[in-house]
Amino acid sequence: MSSYLAVVSGGLDSTTLAYYLDAAGQLGRMLSVDYGQRHRKELTFAAATAQRLGVPWELVDLSGITNLIASSSLTSERIDVPDGHYAEASMRATVVPNRNMMMMSIAAAVAIANDLDGIAVGVHAGDHFIYPDCRPEFIDAMSLALRLGNAGFAPAEFKVVAPFVNISKTDIAVHAGDLRVPIEETWSCYKGGDRHCGRCGTCVERQEALHYAELVDPTEYEDRDFWRTAGRVAAQ
Amino acid sequence: MSSYLAVVSGGLDSTTLAYYLDAAGQLGRMLSVDYGQRHRKELTFAAATAQRLGVPWELVDLSGITNLIASSSLTSERIDVPDGHYAEASMRATVVPNRNMMMMSIAAAVAIANDLDGIAVGVHAGDHFIYPDCRPEFIDAMSLALRLGNAGFAPAEFKVVAPFVNISKTDIAVHAGDLRVPIEETWSCYKGGDRHCGRCGTCVERQEALHYAELVDPTEYEDRDFWRTAGRVAAQ
Repeated sequence: MSSYLAVVSGGLDSTTLAYYLDAAGQLGRMLSVDYGQRHRKELTFAAATAQRLGVPWELVDLSGITNLIASSSLTSERIDVPDGHYAEASMRATVVPNRNMMMMSIAAAVAIANDLDGIAVGVHAGDHFIYPDCRPEFIDAMSLALRLGNAGFAPAEFKVVAPFVNISKTDIAVHAGDLRVPIEETWSCYKGGDRHCGRCGTCVERQEALHYAELVDPTEYEDRDFWRTAGRVAAQ
Repeated sequence: MSSYLAVVSGGLDSTTLAYYLDAAGQLGRMLSVDYGQRHRKELTFAAATAQRLGVPWELVDLSGITNLIASSSLTSERIDVPDGHYAEASMRATVVPNRNMMMMSIAAAVAIANDLDGIAVGVHAGDHFIYPDCRPEFIDAMSLALRLGNAGFAPAEFKVVAPFVNISKTDIAVHAGDLRVPIEETWSCYKGGDRHCGRCGTCVERQEALHYAELVDPTEYEDRDFWRTAGRVAAQ
């Protein structure tokens, strides 16, 4: 039986990933990365998930890189997080350069040190348009680079598993319902306030996915109805 | 003219890399990574090199990962750094899992944020046997993963350049002589004492390379003659 380290942010997708692996008996441990994101709050949700699932959780502090990549609104106080649905024009500002490779490379180091068979990430098809590092060809390229770069020190079949890479966020929400993931114990909002804002790209996606999955959304939002009017194309 | 971010540790190879790029007009900036290595002293040498060459230098703190990957003698106080020449039996203890991918992924993020054309690393053919993440196939796999993972956000030809990947450390030392790299302003020793120990793998390699390149070695060593008796095969 293979066992993986799950990279978990504390959001709906990666929390569902952890439950998904756990149900298959393949969850070895969990790891989160603090890269100086505004929505650092999500990390405490990741820690709580690990505790519920009974696996080790580690936090890697990469926040020192924040000032070096200040062009992203996710890490800079100077740029506002845009409202609306994900669409290239508005959401380019949320791209942290090379973010997934940084997180995955650190996660892989920890996985190898713990004799695991690979890492697992919660990327999904809905992210492909805006985030190139969520696409299947990138996941495959990373698996290859990790095997070559750790040949002799990691299992020969060491890999990045991405069980949601070709399904939608709504499909993930369906999994979350089936796996009885406690939705209220996940955090999505990029703005990192006391409650989910309901207006940023990830809040809009979260509400849309839970709606189409026909799940009750127990989340408290500052603005619970904005998502219904935030068209996929008409963002901003 | 392409411009690159050089990943520089402060050792002979990466310092020569910086001078090599500078001579070609391709040195955009320099970056070092503190991954909790014992030989942290090398980082001050990297900073001094950047100052001499007149390019920005940044240090990324990844030392929080130290405890997670404590199996390597480079980051753990509990494991002794082995003496002798690089050879698999003794030098496996110096392998930090996935080290080069972690450093390269962070370097690439900074390079992209600064609109550079790629990153440059000082890996060489002598490292291939023990370190899989110094081999040309890994460098190529990383270039591919970086392009795919940053498509639309980085130059289409973004790449990892490794001008020394197929030459020996002696060949690098020859370059160092030609480029008038100040050898005394580089730091190699893995033990991180006041002076180079002269006995660890990297001290042995350094002396051997400078000897065969017929350069005067201005370095002060605790043990200046050990390298002559540290056979390539007989190490430990």
